[in-house]
Formats: sequence, structure tokens, C-alpha cells
Amino acid sequence: MYGHNREVTLEQTLPAPASAACCTTLTGEPLDEHRAREFARIFKALADPTRLRLVSLVAAHEGNEACACDLIDPVGLGQPTVSHHLKILVDAGVLRREKRGIWSYYSLAAETLERIAAFLSPA
Amino acid sequence: MYGHNREVTLEQTLPAPASAACCTTLTGEPLDEHRAREFARIFKALADPTRLRLVSLVAAHEGNEACACDLIDPVGLGQPTVSHHLKILVDAGVLRREKRGIWSYYSLAAETLERIAAFLSPA
Repeated sequence: MYGHNREVTLEQTLPAPASAACCTTLTGEPLDEHRAREFARIFKALADPTRLRLVSLVAAHEGNEACACDLIDPVGLGQPTVSHHLKILVDAGVLRREKRGIWSYYSLAAETLERIAAFLSPA
Repeated sequence: MYGHNREVTLEQTLPAPASAACCTTLTGEPLDEHRAREFARIFKALADPTRLRLVSLVAAHEGNEACACDLIDPVGLGQPTVSHHLKILVDAGVLRREKRGIWSYYSLAAETLERIAAFLSPA
């Protein structure tokens, strides 16, 4: 059902571009409310031990990509719970999802992680 | 009341050392549960727009230190609410608090921010 059109499916799961926030740093201008909400949403997605472990498991897989089927056993939770956590990470732009056949494959959204790392790095 | 013994007061507000987590990176070994909980606690402290703005305001002040009295007006909230948010940031090791006279002064806990930035930086 999904395998025939990977481009379109991938594009649909990408978060909206946020290029304006690419160079925001903590030690630059104080955050405005809009930018603070944007960053808080990403931190909220990362503020859960299970979600952090899922991101870490994806990062540990070859090519920083893992099938959902490889993520369920390591975290010791049911598939619906794991899917719920993965959706939060995709919605926040931390992971990307690509559907192939019956499984979803998750990869790191490196630009989001880089943006957050750059934001927190002391000048 | 507080000004006469700054060393002791500062030490009391420091988080416990977490040197073992200093070099944990997302693309290294998958996170164990303990480490995941440790990082999630820091991300949870950052997962709120007001708290992010407070950290940002502290960072924007000279010497990365600000009096609580300078943080209340910019975020447009009451002092008890601001104090509550600042306590969460201190407890998570994101900010340090030092009491001088009737006011508390907050500074960036750079080592925590560096640890998080290093954790998120793609290898």
C-alpha cells in the first residue's frame, strides 16, 4: 500500500521547515514567545525516558534508521504504546517516518537535533 | 541572612555530580534506563516556554547571571510562579541559585547545557 510512492509519503511526515530558528542560541537575544513555544515542544518530546531510548535505538541502528519492528522488544512495551511515543517524536520533528509495506521505518531528523544542540551550546 | 556565607549556600544549590554522563552521545551505545531518566528530567525542565525564556533571560544577562528581580517583569508572570519555574530549573541542574540578601541570583549551569548539547550532536 505504501511502498510504491516513498517520496510523497516521506514528504508528508516531514515537519514544517523552521529555517528561521536554525541559528537561535541561548546566549543570543532572549527568546520571544513564539520561538520559546517551538523549542519547548521539541524538548517536551524528548522529556520522557522511553522516547529518549527510542531515539537512541534509532541512532544506534545502521544509517540512523530502524524499523518499528526492531524498537518494540528493546523498550519492553506493547506496540500501541511504542507507536504512540514514536508519533510524538515524529510530530515534534525529532524523527522521520517512512512507511514501507506493513512497517514504518524511523530515522533521525538530524537538523532538529543540531538546532537544539546549537541552541544549548554556550557561546 | 544569606550574604555572609556564599560558599555554603552555592554548594547547597548545586546538583549532584553526574560525571558518568558527561560523554554520553545519542549515536553511541543505546541509553540504559537510568541514563534515559536522568536526561529526561533535564529535558522536562526545558519543556516549558516560560522556563526556556527564563533560561534565555539569564543567559542574556552580563556574566550569564541575573537577579530574580530582573526576571519577573520580562515574562509577565507573578513572583511565586516565576520562583516555581526557577526552582524546577535549579533542581534539574540547568540553573544555579545563589542567595544574596533578600534576592536570589541565577546563573547558567554550563556543564549541564554542554552535556545535553553533546548528547544531541550527531556524530
